Amino acid sequence: MFELFKRPRVRIEVPRLKPREVSESLPRVNLAELTPELLPYLGQAAYIQLSLFEALARVVTVAPTVQAKEALFPAAGQALKKHQKLVAEIRRRVDEPAVIMEPFVPAIDNFAALVQGADWYESLTSIYLTAGILDDFFVLLAAGIAGDAGTRAAEIMDAESGRQVIVTLLTDAITEDPPLGSRLALWGRRLVGDTLLVARSAIHHTDNARTDEQRIEPAFTELIAQHSRRMDALGLTA
Amino acid sequence: MFELFKRPRVRIEVPRLKPREVSESLPRVNLAELTPELLPYLGQAAYIQLSLFEALARVVTVAPTVQAKEALFPAAGQALKKHQKLVAEIRRRVDEPAVIMEPFVPAIDNFAALVQGADWYESLTSIYLTAGILDDFFVLLAAGIAGDAGTRAAEIMDAESGRQVIVTLLTDAITEDPPLGSRLALWGRRLVGDTLLVARSAIHHTDNARTDEQRIEPAFTELIAQHSRRMDALGLTA
Repeated sequence: MFELFKRPRVRIEVPRLKPREVSESLPRVNLAELTPELLPYLGQAAYIQLSLFEALARVVTVAPTVQAKEALFPAAGQALKKHQKLVAEIRRRVDEPAVIMEPFVPAIDNFAALVQGADWYESLTSIYLTAGILDDFFVLLAAGIAGDAGTRAAEIMDAESGRQVIVTLLTDAITEDPPLGSRLALWGRRLVGDTLLVARSAIHHTDNARTDEQRIEPAFTELIAQHSRRMDALGLTA
Repeated sequence: MFELFKRPRVRIEVPRLKPREVSESLPRVNLAELTPELLPYLGQAAYIQLSLFEALARVVTVAPTVQAKEALFPAAGQALKKHQKLVAEIRRRVDEPAVIMEPFVPAIDNFAALVQGADWYESLTSIYLTAGILDDFFVLLAAGIAGDAGTRAAEIMDAESGRQVIVTLLTDAITEDPPLGSRLALWGRRLVGDTLLVARSAIHHTDNARTDEQRIEPAFTELIAQHSRRMDALGLTA
């Protein structure tokens, strides 16, 4: 499989200081009422970043060239850093961060297995699209966390991801092999449902299910709009 | 396999500012004559750190508990950081670090496959022992690099590794399952030969093979003595 693409023309991108472009237009949909308690929020966000780190480390490991490894390294570093910052936030409050993350392990591990994909290109697509949705979502939820903790959580989640390089890796590969584009478009559309389920599982539900849905809906509409912009960036039809 | 050890009593260690203990007594065996040119030195060291990062990311991924993942995370972060610092050194001199690393890819990939081990415990043992030898060796070689570049290379290679936690993970596991200790002792002894071959491949050979050997020998004796101390730390007979 990889033999075909042994030397993709990878333009290595240096990590940027500016946060990722796509989400800049993300409006502050108000999710405050639906934000979970601080520790579950941090625990789930931290375990998602750990899982993302593992996925990035895997695509570094199986990357077809040293250039591609180098290009993906900063993204793995950023996920690791986000995870460690979230764990540091947990540790300000409890001694054992693992205990706070553990409730989320089965669902996130299962999600990671579902979206891993059949090859390097599907894995890259998954990372770019699912982490994009989940980072956006946790930024939105952070608006409902009171005080400094909320500000810090939003800053951690909104930091540079290093994943923009995936756009280059994938669009180069699709240019060389157009049918790959159709396969990845299909794969990209399939990822949305499972990712939104993970997002939904993070929401604190009130007694009023109808009101909850009314609050969730505009947020999810916005997440899907951002997802479509990321699909566009990859040259894929959403 | 992992079921048996689902909840090892992992004491999570915070990264220390002090460099790893074992090598503090490492004498400055003079390898200056055998130090390769700067760029090959940096290229090989950088690719070894990349390979070590991949090995650490793998043991994070298959770790039996979230505690164990957390415990190993800093070591993965340190390997990533060392790699990126070495790449930054390469980039001061050439535009394309991958080109400098590429000559070392086949041998290091082959080495990584040889020492990967059959399970999590063997992988941890490999990481602790082989990275210990190679870090020590590249610190020794750095003495032969002139000027600031040599000082910086030595500092990068001698920085905190975060791997000390592996001692805790392994000694706890061996306490619960003493036969594991015998298996890992055997494995630890087997690793030395392949690791010293990688070290040997980094040496610049002069025209005088006999003099080279006379210079290499005390260095290798010292590396093996340090290796034995690490085996001791794991409670394994060298």
